[in-house]
Amino acid sequence: MDFPFVTEVPLRFRDLDTMGHVNNAVYVTLLEQARTDFVRDVLNLGLDEVDSVVASLSIDYLSPIQLSDTVTVGIAIGDLGRSSIPMRYEIHAGDRLAATAETTLVTFDSSTQSSAPIPPSWREAIEPYQVTE
Amino acid sequence: MDFPFVTEVPLRFRDLDTMGHVNNAVYVTLLEQARTDFVRDVLNLGLDEVDSVVASLSIDYLSPIQLSDTVTVGIAIGDLGRSSIPMRYEIHAGDRLAATAETTLVTFDSSTQSSAPIPPSWREAIEPYQVTE
Amino acid sequence: MDFPFVTEVPLRFRDLDTMGHVNNAVYVTLLEQARTDFVRDVLNLGLDEVDSVVASLSIDYLSPIQLSDTVTVGIAIGDLGRSSIPMRYEIHAGDRLAATAETTLVTFDSSTQSSAPIPPSWREAIEPYQVTE
Amino acid sequence: MDFPFVTEVPLRFRDLDTMGHVNNAVYVTLLEQARTDFVRDVLNLGLDEVDSVVASLSIDYLSPIQLSDTVTVGIAIGDLGRSSIPMRYEIHAGDRLAATAETTLVTFDSSTQSSAPIPPSWREAIEPYQVTE
Repeated sequence: MDFPFVTEVPLRFRDLDTMGHVNNAVYVTLLEQARTDFVRDVLNLGLDEVDSVVASLSIDYLSPIQLSDTVTVGIAIGDLGRSSIPMRYEIHAGDRLAATAETTLVTFDSSTQSSAPIPPSWREAIEPYQVTE
Repeated sequence: MDFPFVTEVPLRFRDLDTMGHVNNAVYVTLLEQARTDFVRDVLNLGLDEVDSVVASLSIDYLSPIQLSDTVTVGIAIGDLGRSSIPMRYEIHAGDRLAATAETTLVTFDSSTQSSAPIPPSWREAIEPYQVTE
Repeated sequence: MDFPFVTEVPLRFRDLDTMGHVNNAVYVTLLEQARTDFVRDVLNLGLDEVDSVVASLSIDYLSPIQLSDTVTVGIAIGDLGRSSIPMRYEIHAGDRLAATAETTLVTFDSSTQSSAPIPPSWREAIEPYQVTE
Repeated sequence: MDFPFVTEVPLRFRDLDTMGHVNNAVYVTLLEQARTDFVRDVLNLGLDEVDSVVASLSIDYLSPIQLSDTVTVGIAIGDLGRSSIPMRYEIHAGDRLAATAETTLVTFDSSTQSSAPIPPSWREAIEPYQVTE
């Protein structure tokens, strides 16, 4: 995977549903955990210290994931807006591409409950992970 | 909400995250639960009796959801393909529109692990819930 | 069920695991949701407004729970200590007794991070739900 | 930790609740995941290949767990019955003992839906992990 940020997200038995595969909603938790790792490693912050919300999300499910699979998630950042951070993802289960996904994060000011500019220090830290198409 | 199928999905304290709002991945579980209700009420089946997979998903998050909100989910079915069932959703939190979403379900044959035609009895049962744009 | 407080906790497809039954950890979430309902109805508070922690928990699993079961949870309060609130539970799945459980909650002062006396107004509100053995 | 089996269970942001700590029900998922690792490593089986149910569970919560904590779970097996496998656990969060717990697993025959003897091959494999008090 030639994504600039790659992290492993270990699975749990609880991630499976009655079909014996990782449940479709859990993929979103895998993305969130990869984002948590990104924010920790790149911004040196906890996800709950980052005043931002997920504004949109899309996933294409390409292959079921088994509990025995090693799951890695790649993240690439797109063109930053004033307050929006587009992120692209690939979820790999071993050698298989299990899903592709996109989210848009919006930074906001919790005191005013409205969107706020991305802090300059974040822009600088994020820049090496940008892949513009 | 003028969706042909509407169901209530009660929230749980466990749905909240550190921000005190319903977590973004839980919205996908709310959609899945609404789909479970739809399959039970319209097809008289359990979700695990329906040989189908979620092929794609997209959500626009419009408003945070609090634990005290009454959540209702509306479902409308789009144009059926040979084996694909497009579904549109609205998630309402009390009076607020909290999210809009779309999923595509694909029916398959678990013995061959490939897509299979939507059973004629399903087409008939689903028809009243179709809203073509 | 002759418990002084009884509440229904609707199930979700996501509560099931690969065996097709409600997962053992989810029973604890069902207890927590019943406790959330109790705190809302009896103390008029949100669970996160109640400065308390679960100090101990025990469950006896008596019968598997299916998705089609209507789940009700009964709560009875035991003898209150200075800062500890013992609670007994029964989880019913339709007509079957699915589990019995006990938790001890400890009230604390989040500013000092140590246990604190149960507020007198809580004692008064809780009293009608006490069943001493 | 001088338990005969020790495994790490990585945390996720989704494990936290509004208090910013790992939710009390998630501790049970951490135990289940440790048990899944034990069954995989010691019995070479998937948890869903093991015809067994959790018959009882108790936990003492000793210290809150933060997302930044490295969580390890120790498992020791007690005296085996005909069909019951008692297990003791310690959950460590970094250097702190976060919880102690016990579960009883009961092996059963899914065709007759009644308890079944522990297979001799399991007894042999489990023996090195027994700590009798």
